[in-house]
Amino acid sequence: MAQQHREMTGTTGAMGSLEAHLQAQATEFLRSLRLHRESTTDAQGAEESLEAARALRRAARRIGATLHTFRPLLDAEWAAALRPELAWLSGTLAQEHAYGARLERLLEALHRLAGQPPVPGPADEPTAVGNRSARRNGWAQPPSPSTATETGTPRGLAVGAAKAAALLERQLTLARTRAHSTALQAFGSSRFHAVADNVAVLASEVPLRAGTGEDLKPFAAQAESDLIEAIGTLPLGQAGHPYNAGALVHGLASDGAPDAQDAPWLKVRSLLRLHRYAQEVLLGHAPPEPRITDASHALNVHREAAAAAAAAAQAARTPRIAPATAYALGVLHADQRHEVEAARFAFQQAWLHEAVSAR
Amino acid sequence: MAQQHREMTGTTGAMGSLEAHLQAQATEFLRSLRLHRESTTDAQGAEESLEAARALRRAARRIGATLHTFRPLLDAEWAAALRPELAWLSGTLAQEHAYGARLERLLEALHRLAGQPPVPGPADEPTAVGNRSARRNGWAQPPSPSTATETGTPRGLAVGAAKAAALLERQLTLARTRAHSTALQAFGSSRFHAVADNVAVLASEVPLRAGTGEDLKPFAAQAESDLIEAIGTLPLGQAGHPYNAGALVHGLASDGAPDAQDAPWLKVRSLLRLHRYAQEVLLGHAPPEPRITDASHALNVHREAAAAAAAAAQAARTPRIAPATAYALGVLHADQRHEVEAARFAFQQAWLHEAVSAR
Repeated sequence: MAQQHREMTGTTGAMGSLEAHLQAQATEFLRSLRLHRESTTDAQGAEESLEAARALRRAARRIGATLHTFRPLLDAEWAAALRPELAWLSGTLAQEHAYGARLERLLEALHRLAGQPPVPGPADEPTAVGNRSARRNGWAQPPSPSTATETGTPRGLAVGAAKAAALLERQLTLARTRAHSTALQAFGSSRFHAVADNVAVLASEVPLRAGTGEDLKPFAAQAESDLIEAIGTLPLGQAGHPYNAGALVHGLASDGAPDAQDAPWLKVRSLLRLHRYAQEVLLGHAPPEPRITDASHALNVHREAAAAAAAAAQAARTPRIAPATAYALGVLHADQRHEVEAARFAFQQAWLHEAVSAR
Repeated sequence: MAQQHREMTGTTGAMGSLEAHLQAQATEFLRSLRLHRESTTDAQGAEESLEAARALRRAARRIGATLHTFRPLLDAEWAAALRPELAWLSGTLAQEHAYGARLERLLEALHRLAGQPPVPGPADEPTAVGNRSARRNGWAQPPSPSTATETGTPRGLAVGAAKAAALLERQLTLARTRAHSTALQAFGSSRFHAVADNVAVLASEVPLRAGTGEDLKPFAAQAESDLIEAIGTLPLGQAGHPYNAGALVHGLASDGAPDAQDAPWLKVRSLLRLHRYAQEVLLGHAPPEPRITDASHALNVHREAAAAAAAAAQAARTPRIAPATAYALGVLHADQRHEVEAARFAFQQAWLHEAVSAR
């Protein structure tokens, strides 16, 4: 593929840094893939396998973002074909980690809400397929659903927290196990091999478009202005007013309202990532501005807390749960929606504070 | 009683302002009592009756606070005997209003959480005994508890909010009706007549202690320093950090932890009121500093939200409620505990901001 561009390899200056970045990320992708293959055949390699998958996703995201931001400088057909495949791959690999992190976040919140410090479970026992053992939730086994202690006594609430933890652990561990199987299937698929082949080509030569300029900056500037435009649509005035209760509005509605109010924040998170990766192409490994780091962190928390709140609401829809369990899940849902609101506040503080002080 | 002090009436200056304040409040107490009696025999007088009871409580609180703060200047035995009786009276009369306000707060929160604007009910239909009609909660009648729509569908959550509203309305309206009966019984009791007789004496002459100084300021200063000492025990550092999640810690614990963490804030609220009333004695009707007004408002919200959160938790312990109802009550409880946290933040802002700018 893209043989017509082979003569352009070895360009210098700005275009050279685009090539160097893509080649470095492609090399990292291939290195992580090799590590992942080695670790998944090794019974002791569970942590290495997870770390390798993480590095693989990280490289895939950066390659995909660079293909998007600098697409006018690259072979159009090739970039347009590879980018969704990279998104599919990093999305598929991210699921297992996401379910694990979501469960951890929810169990920590339940322990905080119940005033019980998390009890450390037995040491992780990684399985041969790289699946971290399910966290123990640190509570004694809750009584069976038919006992009379669940309602009618204050103690019912603590029991409810324990039962909510058990329910979430069951549901999210199942989802995580399924995501692990899906990821294993993906690694063995011809679709994945096609992506890996494409990235292998990229590691040795970048399919540049003939006859384009040398300047990367206009494309990086476009990524930044897309970001700033999207931030302009956020309700930052509300977000900067602590305890505005905005994130929990419609929390009991039946129409999926949280998704609607979260969408612009998730979009800004994606655009902030594109901006950050574009800066990496321009500036190499220079650390990003603190403002960018803080804002990115806030939007990651936003996404995780929103997903955790949705998981608590989803668990509350399980048929035949005890009222005490449902109550605990309601408290948990609201707690996580307040974490969403707190993340918006943190983003507003990071973004506007630095913008003001930089003037 | 206190005839031995009759010769001291007519003192001037500082002591005169103490006498004038107590006499004015006693007169207001008696005026409100007369209005209340007239309005409760009038079928159209429900609003007047509530307003009269409010004014009566207001005067009783001020008399009681003044008896406490300036007790070394007053006949000791008389003041020590009257003060708990005034506290009993204002406490008894406050219950009916408190249950009504709590229900209103919880229904408004549920409407906000369900994304449904409150539907105005039919115009209030005051009863002959001055009881405001129960607010309509603005939802259509929820389906019976046995229908299958409660769980298993997203719609279950909106149904849960409606059922939670109906449950709270039932429980708090019952509590309010009982409080109304208790208040009516109190008005007819010999205990109440003894209080009213004592206040009638106070309106014409204040039982001052013989041989005390003329200066009110040391006693008002003591009230202020008691307040400042109590504020010093509050976790204002935590409160000033938005979204610290402190008010919901232990929200699912079984040991009444919210009461323990709320207690110092409720104590500061009482001491702030004593301070405010002492300033009224010294300065008459001059408006209080904005700092005092804002701080008082924040602590009133703190108390109301904490009581509302407790009512939601209590309702969740009703036997045999549907899981969707319990879930909605859990969300509501957490929402109100966040209002508690927001009130602490508002208090911290009001108190420290003004303290800093006044330096």
